[in-house]
Amino acid sequence: MSEINLSKYNLHTDLIIDDNSLEHQDNLVDNLTVTKTNKSGHYITITFDDITDKTNYQKVLKHLNAGISEILKVNKVKKNASCLIVGLGNRFSTPDSLGVKVASKVTISAHLYEVGEASQNIRKVSAFTPGVMAATGIESVKMIMALTKIVKPDFLIAIDALASSNITRINKTIQLTDTGIHPGSGIGNNRKEISQKSIGIPVIAIGVPTVVMSSTIVYDTLDYLIKHIAYLKTNECINKLSYKKTNYLNKLNNQNLSNIDKKNLLGLFGTLNEIDKQSLIEEVLNNTELNMIVTPTEIDFLIEKLSSLIADSLNNVLYN
Amino acid sequence: MSEINLSKYNLHTDLIIDDNSLEHQDNLVDNLTVTKTNKSGHYITITFDDITDKTNYQKVLKHLNAGISEILKVNKVKKNASCLIVGLGNRFSTPDSLGVKVASKVTISAHLYEVGEASQNIRKVSAFTPGVMAATGIESVKMIMALTKIVKPDFLIAIDALASSNITRINKTIQLTDTGIHPGSGIGNNRKEISQKSIGIPVIAIGVPTVVMSSTIVYDTLDYLIKHIAYLKTNECINKLSYKKTNYLNKLNNQNLSNIDKKNLLGLFGTLNEIDKQSLIEEVLNNTELNMIVTPTEIDFLIEKLSSLIADSLNNVLYN
Amino acid sequence: MSEINLSKYNLHTDLIIDDNSLEHQDNLVDNLTVTKTNKSGHYITITFDDITDKTNYQKVLKHLNAGISEILKVNKVKKNASCLIVGLGNRFSTPDSLGVKVASKVTISAHLYEVGEASQNIRKVSAFTPGVMAATGIESVKMIMALTKIVKPDFLIAIDALASSNITRINKTIQLTDTGIHPGSGIGNNRKEISQKSIGIPVIAIGVPTVVMSSTIVYDTLDYLIKHIAYLKTNECINKLSYKKTNYLNKLNNQNLSNIDKKNLLGLFGTLNEIDKQSLIEEVLNNTELNMIVTPTEIDFLIEKLSSLIADSLNNVLYN
Amino acid sequence: MSEINLSKYNLHTDLIIDDNSLEHQDNLVDNLTVTKTNKSGHYITITFDDITDKTNYQKVLKHLNAGISEILKVNKVKKNASCLIVGLGNRFSTPDSLGVKVASKVTISAHLYEVGEASQNIRKVSAFTPGVMAATGIESVKMIMALTKIVKPDFLIAIDALASSNITRINKTIQLTDTGIHPGSGIGNNRKEISQKSIGIPVIAIGVPTVVMSSTIVYDTLDYLIKHIAYLKTNECINKLSYKKTNYLNKLNNQNLSNIDKKNLLGLFGTLNEIDKQSLIEEVLNNTELNMIVTPTEIDFLIEKLSSLIADSLNNVLYN
Repeated sequence: MSEINLSKYNLHTDLIIDDNSLEHQDNLVDNLTVTKTNKSGHYITITFDDITDKTNYQKVLKHLNAGISEILKVNKVKKNASCLIVGLGNRFSTPDSLGVKVASKVTISAHLYEVGEASQNIRKVSAFTPGVMAATGIESVKMIMALTKIVKPDFLIAIDALASSNITRINKTIQLTDTGIHPGSGIGNNRKEISQKSIGIPVIAIGVPTVVMSSTIVYDTLDYLIKHIAYLKTNECINKLSYKKTNYLNKLNNQNLSNIDKKNLLGLFGTLNEIDKQSLIEEVLNNTELNMIVTPTEIDFLIEKLSSLIADSLNNVLYN
Repeated sequence: MSEINLSKYNLHTDLIIDDNSLEHQDNLVDNLTVTKTNKSGHYITITFDDITDKTNYQKVLKHLNAGISEILKVNKVKKNASCLIVGLGNRFSTPDSLGVKVASKVTISAHLYEVGEASQNIRKVSAFTPGVMAATGIESVKMIMALTKIVKPDFLIAIDALASSNITRINKTIQLTDTGIHPGSGIGNNRKEISQKSIGIPVIAIGVPTVVMSSTIVYDTLDYLIKHIAYLKTNECINKLSYKKTNYLNKLNNQNLSNIDKKNLLGLFGTLNEIDKQSLIEEVLNNTELNMIVTPTEIDFLIEKLSSLIADSLNNVLYN
Repeated sequence: MSEINLSKYNLHTDLIIDDNSLEHQDNLVDNLTVTKTNKSGHYITITFDDITDKTNYQKVLKHLNAGISEILKVNKVKKNASCLIVGLGNRFSTPDSLGVKVASKVTISAHLYEVGEASQNIRKVSAFTPGVMAATGIESVKMIMALTKIVKPDFLIAIDALASSNITRINKTIQLTDTGIHPGSGIGNNRKEISQKSIGIPVIAIGVPTVVMSSTIVYDTLDYLIKHIAYLKTNECINKLSYKKTNYLNKLNNQNLSNIDKKNLLGLFGTLNEIDKQSLIEEVLNNTELNMIVTPTEIDFLIEKLSSLIADSLNNVLYN
Repeated sequence: MSEINLSKYNLHTDLIIDDNSLEHQDNLVDNLTVTKTNKSGHYITITFDDITDKTNYQKVLKHLNAGISEILKVNKVKKNASCLIVGLGNRFSTPDSLGVKVASKVTISAHLYEVGEASQNIRKVSAFTPGVMAATGIESVKMIMALTKIVKPDFLIAIDALASSNITRINKTIQLTDTGIHPGSGIGNNRKEISQKSIGIPVIAIGVPTVVMSSTIVYDTLDYLIKHIAYLKTNECINKLSYKKTNYLNKLNNQNLSNIDKKNLLGLFGTLNEIDKQSLIEEVLNNTELNMIVTPTEIDFLIEKLSSLIADSLNNVLYN
């Protein structure tokens, strides 16, 4: 996936992408991309098309290992520093169960210290799944802070499912950040944050967008409609069937129509700026109570794969 | 949900609705609607807003009981006729697991006959879940036909999750028909059908739309955008906030814009007929490989509720 | 189930039964028994044969409601006192998942206070599942104490699966106590306890024996062998088939053989006292690594039923 | 596990072991044993202590691959012969879910032939899980025969959980046979069999004992008690603690007491022959309704491991 047009989504995005601050390399392996930014914190974004075959899985795993290692390094996390894994989300809701599943697949070592079975060289790793407030009645942030006080880890890694700001990213992106976590923020609640500032230790977040709002689907589709028409216009001498090939999406990313063409194609709606377009779509869907949060139907299978990938990577990096 | 504008969707709908043939009553209980048609077979459609609280659940159950009883009656199914329940779909994919879950919740009695424990008054009920072809390698239709030959039921009831033709219906509709089933047809495969014509016994299908195409979300949203603007135009003296109340969706169903207004609002796109609009949206999404099949994020919870509802109703009707 | 011979098992029992202190009534409903003792704390034990049919389920539920109400009353828990439910055990091990399943089925209300939706009359209930140390690396007791400090409940209810001291009790007993809990004590670990003494609020434990040691199966069987032979001896004029009827177990409970008969029947082993018999059986099984902890094969089904029963009862009592 | 004393259990065993007919090699790898017999059909039995660590898992997998390859070879199954996998048992009962879990983990290829995607070199593999009669009302044997007629496989592989005839074998044995399967026979039902004789194609059964009767636990423990006392008697000059080491079980297998010593130790019971001992134990437990079928508490974890092991082996052998 190309990163070119992402900056415009920064208004309501959960995945912070700032292409201007691309200071590091951009390792393109097939459709696998690693993007790094460090504005008000560090961000590493790994995008991929598919992890359902073994070769792709191993490729993405390698990049994820490198990404987690790097974000630990820039946060000065030492080789023997103890780690608390926090698996956020709801185990009873498949698209929201990513964090819980990762926590259950990561190898735990802290109890070996209690029973005297741990060798000196094993990092102390513990894990915790706070659950969601509707199921516990207790704020996740408060639970994590209370647990952090008794476990006293040197750093914290939290895994969570996110809402996607873009239909191309769902289940195809892993983002690493050190800017803290805001459990439950996905549903519009303004809760406290867990961050290095608030708890005094590095807080690494690993997020995967697994759901998307209907309004985002509509907005993005109309955006791609404009790009599609622009591409056809630019390439009108080319046989119409020729665009039906792989990576057509990438070809669209630089396309645009003039304002007059936009008005011809999509009327008043086409002339609106991005914020107004989004607002109008949301107005229609919210008022009719049809602005669903949706997830692809393969989600059961993908959550299994993604949670194994992230847990494998954590096991590789934490115990190496 | 009102049924008024549904006829236009008949092109690619899985739920066959034909308002012109509404020959029976339309029992409106709150937002619960029962619609009956009998063009080329019988259809009973029960729509509802919510079955997550006990009162609504009981209301819908009552109507579902009546619906199943009626469709058995019109198919001349006798009180002691033996029944084979077929739970279609994939148990490992939550939105596709409805049929399998219902089959596991229906009370089975056929084995009691084998061991001599069944009283004369209990209907003989057996159940079968063929699984999906990717998991078995065997066509569901062939499996069902083979099983029907050994079980020799007097009639067959098949339960399946469907793709929705409309964003307002997802997880909010149960359709009963006696026109046969086409397992796997949801994914575009042209397989054989199981019907009274092909197997000689009544075949009742119980379907719930649990998934929807992204293209349908876009199409329907733009349709509601036109209706929304039309409503605002018609009611422009009314305070803008006044439309933010319950059942706004119902108010929109009669709204429409003139062709000129449609062109002003949505340009060339607004002037397309329904088929061309759908084709253009599908062209964009299919070429970019973004035409996902999606399901609301509450699907785990809703499948539990819906499968319990249908199984409760089958237990009520079959053993009454 | 009769309680007559239970006192002898007090050596290594997890269910404390002391028949001498039976100060209250013993409500026998069919095979449902309620026993109360209050030596060094209060104990209410409800035993039953079967909760898989609806009538029995409702009977046991009624007694469980009364039992929970009473143990709250003797601990002076007020009608509006806030409650923290602690679901102990391992969600990934069926026989150990009782507490976790109950916690997921109890209605939670504490979050309604946070969002201002709770009426004054609803008791504040929250829930927490610490998990097991092998999966978290963190001691359950420490987690519970940390959570108690932030939730600040007026009392705590902990639910756990237990090891049974008797083969007749498995999945057929619910014990309520106010003497505190010792998470993980079942596997021989000497951990801290959670009790009114240690945390200053009433701590009610609800336990169901779901597993049993192989050594207990052997010991109990040989004990019933002696009783069985004694019964046959006493009733030798009676037709041998006559003992094959319901409640034969109850008939055995008063039976015993003379020491000479025990020696004739079971040799040196038969003359050993209870502790020595147990020790010898454990010696054989522990040295050969065959002293398994086992559970009946119906455990998946029974854990579902038992967790629903306890959750229904908690919902009845806590929100009444 | 040594095979030495197993012949005596042949009366009520589900795993047919006949040491006298040991005609092939006995590959001892640590505690991994492969035993082959071919009396009235071929039997290959693989026993092991542990498959929870990766090294042991790979060792056992290697032997299982060899075993499955050999039993296919002696049944003259060709490299390109098509296979129907039948996963027997109840998916809702953990200890009985082995067959169903294996079927869901085996790679299926038959549907690729239908859609024209299969290369010539891939064996055609399909899978089917009939379920249990209490859940379907239909006899498994009838379902399998009906399916076999439509799938027309060249051979059939059925996987099932078994009742163990010995407490040392539970979850530690895989038996391969070509003598046919008798679904549901574990619960005393006399159903039809699926075998080469009845359906005309090779029928390979893969079984793992996952449950055991309480009466077997008692019988085996008393047997080991006699062996244990015999070992102590023979080695009485040896420090008592010295027997507490690994493989004590193996040391016991040759031990026995004289009849006088048996009578001294266990009275009349000790003098009974094996059949009478078993009958007496069963009489006590059956009359008191305490003869439970039990499974070790780690069963959830072990079924996952065992089903992965068998599926990995089938994938290795069938697609090689």
